[in-house]
Amino acid sequence: MRRSEFQIEDPAAITSFLDDCEYGVISLISDGKPYGVTVNFAYREGKIYFHGALEGRKAEAIEADARCSFAAVKPYAYIPSYFSDTRSACPATQFFASVIAEGHIIRLDAIEQKAFGLSALMEKMQPEGGYEPIDAANPIYTKMLEKTGVYAIESDCITFKVKAGQNLSKDRHGKLMEHMNERDTASDHETLALMQNLQNKESL
Amino acid sequence: MRRSEFQIEDPAAITSFLDDCEYGVISLISDGKPYGVTVNFAYREGKIYFHGALEGRKAEAIEADARCSFAAVKPYAYIPSYFSDTRSACPATQFFASVIAEGHIIRLDAIEQKAFGLSALMEKMQPEGGYEPIDAANPIYTKMLEKTGVYAIESDCITFKVKAGQNLSKDRHGKLMEHMNERDTASDHETLALMQNLQNKESL
Repeated sequence: MRRSEFQIEDPAAITSFLDDCEYGVISLISDGKPYGVTVNFAYREGKIYFHGALEGRKAEAIEADARCSFAAVKPYAYIPSYFSDTRSACPATQFFASVIAEGHIIRLDAIEQKAFGLSALMEKMQPEGGYEPIDAANPIYTKMLEKTGVYAIESDCITFKVKAGQNLSKDRHGKLMEHMNERDTASDHETLALMQNLQNKESL
Repeated sequence: MRRSEFQIEDPAAITSFLDDCEYGVISLISDGKPYGVTVNFAYREGKIYFHGALEGRKAEAIEADARCSFAAVKPYAYIPSYFSDTRSACPATQFFASVIAEGHIIRLDAIEQKAFGLSALMEKMQPEGGYEPIDAANPIYTKMLEKTGVYAIESDCITFKVKAGQNLSKDRHGKLMEHMNERDTASDHETLALMQNLQNKESL
């Protein structure tokens, strides 16, 4: 997952990818050791919002060291070795898209900012609505806004990678698409659409 | 994701969960900063196997500091706030299962060990076979086994959490299941089966 040929430089594509990801993993340092926490998140105006308790290991780790790495992944089709007409396991690979963002975490303390972050989360998770807007002026939210920790990741380096056969020769790419059409799973359909999309972009 | 009421102490359940997870995120420390990498993995005999290049940032980070935290997540149903008959957004929650393992990474150097780790990955990703077994004695694998980095996470602390309504009163639990039955998505079906399973275990 380090080859630059898979990297995509398109802010709109990053936003669209993160809007679709259900969760991410935040890598922190806790007591000098790596510490991964899983979060639901919302991506707004270049920042990744998440929430959590104001106490406990996650809050303490962030307090002690705000630096973080954030990862969100979407697996696409698994490409079995035998799609490559060989008895070797080597060509087996997993197609995927991922965002890795490195930066630091800011704890939001102003009630309006907390309401903004939590609103972003609700709009992502529950786009159909069905609740009163989270507003610092609404008394049903006063206590919750006080006691909930709301955080924003400010990233100085965000990398979006999509691995879906871009590195293959035209011939192997075509054969792979044939195999996937034949296998015909939901993941294959989604991956084929992605591959087509990447091809169209390349030919522009 | 820190409440012990959601913790499950059952090695077979952990194995089954990890066998189903397509990928995980490994938190490392790289140049003193948190660094998350995404990996396909296989869980065998208490160890998490993954592979990668023998050069590059991931390999260097592991070389410099073998400590890690590993996270694998499966999101279950999203529970919208309005399932709780309120105009407040507060009851909204995401059901999920997750494994967090803390430990350290061992780079496997013996060819037989590397073959074991890669075989475990292939058996997980491609259970239908269709390739010659990865064996150090098979010349088609000699070069690959040499140049591929194979790693095992040895964990001294593995935590499996499932959040699927176990903390709810019997009345709210029942109403929630009714709502999910009505919404009737694939994720609801899977989550309802999980909830039933957790209830059966509790009543033993």
